[in-house]
Amino acid sequence: MTIKSLDNAKVKYYRSLQQKKYRDENNEFLVEGRHLVLEAYKHGFLKEIILCEEELMPLDVPKTVVSYEVIKRISTVDTPQKVMGLCRKMDDTTIGSRILVLDEIQDPGNLGTIIRSAVAFDIDTIILGDGCVDLYNPKVIRSTQGMLFHVPIISFPIDKLIPILKGLEIPIFATRVEYGVEVETLKEEEKERFALIMGNEGNGVNPKYLEKSDKNIYIPMNGEVESLNVAIATSIILYEMRRRG
Amino acid sequence: MTIKSLDNAKVKYYRSLQQKKYRDENNEFLVEGRHLVLEAYKHGFLKEIILCEEELMPLDVPKTVVSYEVIKRISTVDTPQKVMGLCRKMDDTTIGSRILVLDEIQDPGNLGTIIRSAVAFDIDTIILGDGCVDLYNPKVIRSTQGMLFHVPIISFPIDKLIPILKGLEIPIFATRVEYGVEVETLKEEEKERFALIMGNEGNGVNPKYLEKSDKNIYIPMNGEVESLNVAIATSIILYEMRRRG
Repeated sequence: MTIKSLDNAKVKYYRSLQQKKYRDENNEFLVEGRHLVLEAYKHGFLKEIILCEEELMPLDVPKTVVSYEVIKRISTVDTPQKVMGLCRKMDDTTIGSRILVLDEIQDPGNLGTIIRSAVAFDIDTIILGDGCVDLYNPKVIRSTQGMLFHVPIISFPIDKLIPILKGLEIPIFATRVEYGVEVETLKEEEKERFALIMGNEGNGVNPKYLEKSDKNIYIPMNGEVESLNVAIATSIILYEMRRRG
Repeated sequence: MTIKSLDNAKVKYYRSLQQKKYRDENNEFLVEGRHLVLEAYKHGFLKEIILCEEELMPLDVPKTVVSYEVIKRISTVDTPQKVMGLCRKMDDTTIGSRILVLDEIQDPGNLGTIIRSAVAFDIDTIILGDGCVDLYNPKVIRSTQGMLFHVPIISFPIDKLIPILKGLEIPIFATRVEYGVEVETLKEEEKERFALIMGNEGNGVNPKYLEKSDKNIYIPMNGEVESLNVAIATSIILYEMRRRG
């Protein structure tokens, strides 16, 4: 059976997941395209496949077949792919030892790109503080290129996180343009166990977190440039945290 | 005198500069906002200021005063700033010794971000090969954060560039996932004089350029990740090319 009606209740439900409110209420979200559906499946997030009649996706989960008109209705892009996935959110609560903490990252593309780089450079936990864009925003998901399924991502207020990190004796690094040390001076042992706080696009890391961090670090660069894009800065520091020698 | 009519010939000319065709024909382009206008002025690109009645911009160039309706017509963003600048393109033709070569970078945000990072990490020449998005595309200009005025940027075909680089004995590095060397193994002297070729978002560097490069380099990372965003990868390599010790 192919669902063709835009008034179908299931179609209305899928479409509602374009909004954060309904994603939060139902603990579910959508991904678009074969690559993301496969990634979600491999990591146990995939609950259901939504696809057009002529498509095949031989995975062991329930399937809903719909018309292209319906897919267009559910999708957030102009020319949607013909395979989508309904995923359940997973709540991780365990903290690792190579932690990235994000303070009010508001641009979806930046958040997605940061997650992709974090997996590339062996981050084992990402903490989203208050004020970050919703992880399940379709643009964030697209920019991660599926990497959001490869690392535990926890939403947690940073002011409650800091005492926990202190209790676990995990050194806290935050980025700051003045009064910091150059990132390339970090020692091998400092790269093994850390929580790195990266700040908002316009304002940087909140001063109250800077105060509580063990080291403030910065990326040395040409004085003509005020700052780097936050996804770029985060990726460079994470690259450095994985660099040996 | 304030120009209020959307049919005014000057307004029509400014608006035409939203299109590459007319930017090319006239060798002029627009920038939006005080920061970019000031950057253009400082570096000798600014020809004329376009601003709303209540605004002031005390720079020594001709001014055109317009209504907010007119600015909205000229601007490419929904909520335009009230100061814009008409700039002339500059044709640089001299090649430096820390060169970044871009092969078919198609996303405006990526190109702009790459230019910003290139200035941060002391690149002295950027070459845009065929197939790159137009440098004067408004989104590119915004993403550069004004840094396009800080470095000579030359449009030039890469296959004609390579023999010139060879003649000047400038080593050519290109990124490649297999058969390369890790970027962190480059020696101090290799970081002083080079041309780095970065490739297209989907396909990487064209094989015909890889063949002619002196070294293929890559960024070591976790095997779960296929690739990094091209602006991220470029910035990390440029960071490494400026890193000492």
